[in-house]
Amino acid sequence: MIAAYSATSQARVNAALEILFKAPLPELSRLYEAMHYSVMIGGKRVRPLLAYAACEALGGTAEQANGAACAVELIHAYSLVHDDLPAMDDDDLRRGQPTTHKKFDEACAILAGDGLQSLAFSALLDPRLSSLDADIRLQQVTALAHAAGPAGMVGGQAIDLGSVGLKLDQQALEQMHRHKTGALIEVSVKLGALASGRAEQEELKALQTYAQAIGLAFQVQDDILDVESDTETLGKRQGADIARDKPTYPALLGLDAAKAYALELRDQALHALRPFDAAAEPLRDLARYIVERHN
Amino acid sequence: MIAAYSATSQARVNAALEILFKAPLPELSRLYEAMHYSVMIGGKRVRPLLAYAACEALGGTAEQANGAACAVELIHAYSLVHDDLPAMDDDDLRRGQPTTHKKFDEACAILAGDGLQSLAFSALLDPRLSSLDADIRLQQVTALAHAAGPAGMVGGQAIDLGSVGLKLDQQALEQMHRHKTGALIEVSVKLGALASGRAEQEELKALQTYAQAIGLAFQVQDDILDVESDTETLGKRQGADIARDKPTYPALLGLDAAKAYALELRDQALHALRPFDAAAEPLRDLARYIVERHN
Repeated sequence: MIAAYSATSQARVNAALEILFKAPLPELSRLYEAMHYSVMIGGKRVRPLLAYAACEALGGTAEQANGAACAVELIHAYSLVHDDLPAMDDDDLRRGQPTTHKKFDEACAILAGDGLQSLAFSALLDPRLSSLDADIRLQQVTALAHAAGPAGMVGGQAIDLGSVGLKLDQQALEQMHRHKTGALIEVSVKLGALASGRAEQEELKALQTYAQAIGLAFQVQDDILDVESDTETLGKRQGADIARDKPTYPALLGLDAAKAYALELRDQALHALRPFDAAAEPLRDLARYIVERHN
Repeated sequence: MIAAYSATSQARVNAALEILFKAPLPELSRLYEAMHYSVMIGGKRVRPLLAYAACEALGGTAEQANGAACAVELIHAYSLVHDDLPAMDDDDLRRGQPTTHKKFDEACAILAGDGLQSLAFSALLDPRLSSLDADIRLQQVTALAHAAGPAGMVGGQAIDLGSVGLKLDQQALEQMHRHKTGALIEVSVKLGALASGRAEQEELKALQTYAQAIGLAFQVQDDILDVESDTETLGKRQGADIARDKPTYPALLGLDAAKAYALELRDQALHALRPFDAAAEPLRDLARYIVERHN
């Protein structure tokens, strides 16, 4: 089930993204090529899926969430480009392909990331992608800027960099993940829900609980896969976290307890969705998939 | 005259900016410190001044443009942080102080820049800074995202990097500057004008002509100062452009013709402001100041 919904979401967001990468000048073609490469290099498009599924869970159409879906994927893509830079994680490989600074160069990768962040805000407001009320759009922009910024994702990156080699306890580890990956997952759901035009406070709260649980489950499972999977399946270096002495759930809790924790988080996510009808099924499927996936 | 208006604008925008740099967590204090350092290292606050002055030229109060003023300064500050990185211009000194990656480290500077960009969009919508209609805010966000992004400032950086060592003609040089510095100057005026709540299409058009002319005049004068001034007065290395073989107006036109061109651009800017009354005097003063300044 989630495979079919995911394929549809991917096709939809990829088509929407394509219209954003037309260089307005020949002199800008390399920059646009680097941005396009960074976004189209692959990826599971989990965040766009969340935006579409949250919008549909509240009775909206997926199309209404096109701007939101593009925006969160563009923020995600920019964060990976900068995260891979030599001064950051120094990764040569991303999803089995050369990272942007390897394919182009470092200056180009810095600028491509910067440009992708701006483009995310443009996408959110782009009338070619979706047509929403001004009040809803403003709530979306405010939420995205907060989630992407220093009190959200960028803050998580900073906490992560500052914690390499440190022995974090579970609380500190979760605080890092809540910022680094959780904030963007949460806002993907929120932007999609807002795009429906029918989001009540109570529903937004339930979806937030759902998003927080799957965001953490996603991370716990990532840490488990870093231990258990292999480089080919992952599309990135297996054991990379361990090699860098990054704090992980298996290192902190042990492998079995980490697996149990991932399942507990899945159940929390499903519990939060109890008030929703069958339109929330893709969100439920995703919660199940996250802890069952192999890459 | 412009000195007094500039001092008032600086004090106003600095006070507004300060409320944005409160770290929500102790773990984020270094990131927030790096962002704060990058913004408060100094600078003439020309873009905030433009936002305030454009708002007042249309009969608005300066306070209405507080969000706009902060936003454009935050975008400017982030662009400098990334521009100074080793992979870009590799500058150790900015306004006589260590650049952000020298004062902190490279990873922290990349993240601080990223965070400042998000913060710019947050600032534009922050109800603590200014209270505007949803429609106006949306126009502002759309304009800022476009001006800061790959079709604007970031695009200009990319064109600039791609043109080092090339012999550009005047048209190509101006295209680079229109993007790299012009787009943000133009949007500073536009955001301020929109903040007034009274901007008509015709007035926006006249202010755009003004902004384009002073943006270019600013750049021509910068190039002239790079030849004529000294490191101490500039607060950055004199002759840096020449040392890097960057294309400049004095190199292209000769020093005297470059000076004449700067004056011509000033006159274009003043001409565009003819329909405006005395409330536009700070904008006029700035046009005059730009070609008379020594740093």
